[in-house]
Amino acid sequence: MNLLLLEPADFVAADRVLLDGRRLKHLQEVHRAEAGESLRVGLIGGDMGEGRLLRLDAGSAELQVSFDQPPPVKLPITLLLALPRPKMLRRVLQTVATMGVPRLVLLNSYRVEKSFWQTPFLEQPAIREQLILGLEQARDTVLPEVIIEKRFKPFVEDRLPLLAAGSLGLVGHPGDFPPCPRGLPLDQPVTLAIGPEGGWIPYEVQKLAEAGLQPVQLGERILRVETAVSALLARLF
Amino acid sequence: MNLLLLEPADFVAADRVLLDGRRLKHLQEVHRAEAGESLRVGLIGGDMGEGRLLRLDAGSAELQVSFDQPPPVKLPITLLLALPRPKMLRRVLQTVATMGVPRLVLLNSYRVEKSFWQTPFLEQPAIREQLILGLEQARDTVLPEVIIEKRFKPFVEDRLPLLAAGSLGLVGHPGDFPPCPRGLPLDQPVTLAIGPEGGWIPYEVQKLAEAGLQPVQLGERILRVETAVSALLARLF
Repeated sequence: MNLLLLEPADFVAADRVLLDGRRLKHLQEVHRAEAGESLRVGLIGGDMGEGRLLRLDAGSAELQVSFDQPPPVKLPITLLLALPRPKMLRRVLQTVATMGVPRLVLLNSYRVEKSFWQTPFLEQPAIREQLILGLEQARDTVLPEVIIEKRFKPFVEDRLPLLAAGSLGLVGHPGDFPPCPRGLPLDQPVTLAIGPEGGWIPYEVQKLAEAGLQPVQLGERILRVETAVSALLARLF
Repeated sequence: MNLLLLEPADFVAADRVLLDGRRLKHLQEVHRAEAGESLRVGLIGGDMGEGRLLRLDAGSAELQVSFDQPPPVKLPITLLLALPRPKMLRRVLQTVATMGVPRLVLLNSYRVEKSFWQTPFLEQPAIREQLILGLEQARDTVLPEVIIEKRFKPFVEDRLPLLAAGSLGLVGHPGDFPPCPRGLPLDQPVTLAIGPEGGWIPYEVQKLAEAGLQPVQLGERILRVETAVSALLARLF
């Protein structure tokens, strides 16, 4: 936790917050914080600043906070991800938030096992929990938007063309394709699709291409989804 | 598992292997393989090719194998990593093998907790197990070399200058430093150091600089070690 993220409900006065639960535990056990110390804080969806620890005991921590710094800019990207297996999903949500992706679409694909859609990790509070962990890691305050699309075809045919309009559309896909572009300017919008383990099937690659997303490759090596996400984002921008 | 990695001990004839244990279970449960099918195989440290499944039963699988393709080239990099916490270590070892790093140095740092050095995941068979998983993911056969350096100063003063000689030496470090270079040619040797959670301390950055490694940054966001590894490698090459 490189940033203590605060929610509106934490405030007991305009410049005072009271924390318990996970964040209190983190202050006590990992940060080993003591009264008088200053910590980096951020207001969810808002600015970042400093919190001075007024009091820390077994049940709660009280901080005086001020905010004077905007969060880091996001990448100009919409990331489409074939729904990963539940354990990987949690880590990918953190990675997506950490790397500064503002919009994530979790999408069905032929090679996504049906059972993956049943996971409790897809419920909104569970998604939010992982995104918050990713923001705290990165020092960011702005939650990415997460869109869930359980049907590939209607999404790709009806909604993706609009979503991807005006952006550079890419599909990360192993094979004889052009290499993934490098070092794009931060005002170049991108829509990037990353497939499931085992990859998109040819029909899906074709449908994505019809919606304006062209295949690009990242070399011979097959990467796990989480590794592919950070590698592709770091190469693109 | 995108490649079935074979060891010399698996061979019962020049072109026949007999598998049990983890790989058998994977063939049965994940791959749901049947006799007659062909699978991608690789000989550890050697070539890749095809294996035809002759027989698969509860206790073992027999394959006829042939090898005709070299493994993918490695990146020209030596990666120095402050020892991550045990759970992260296992994933990082996989990532390092998947991304094609040929040499990894696990190094002490002021911010590495002493207890991390006690983990059984640092024993050679445990390291090898994670590297193999990473190679199977990437479709590679060549194990990275893993060097363990429990003392920062003697390593950085006495051995690092030789190890880094003739290479571009870099330290991934947040702050007001030049950005990490992009798209280096594959014949440009690099020595890259990535710090612990919380980062290198200034003394360590200075000692690394004296050994020829200059700080570079990857933007404002603080990345987890595993994310930093894949992001920096994907940006460099």
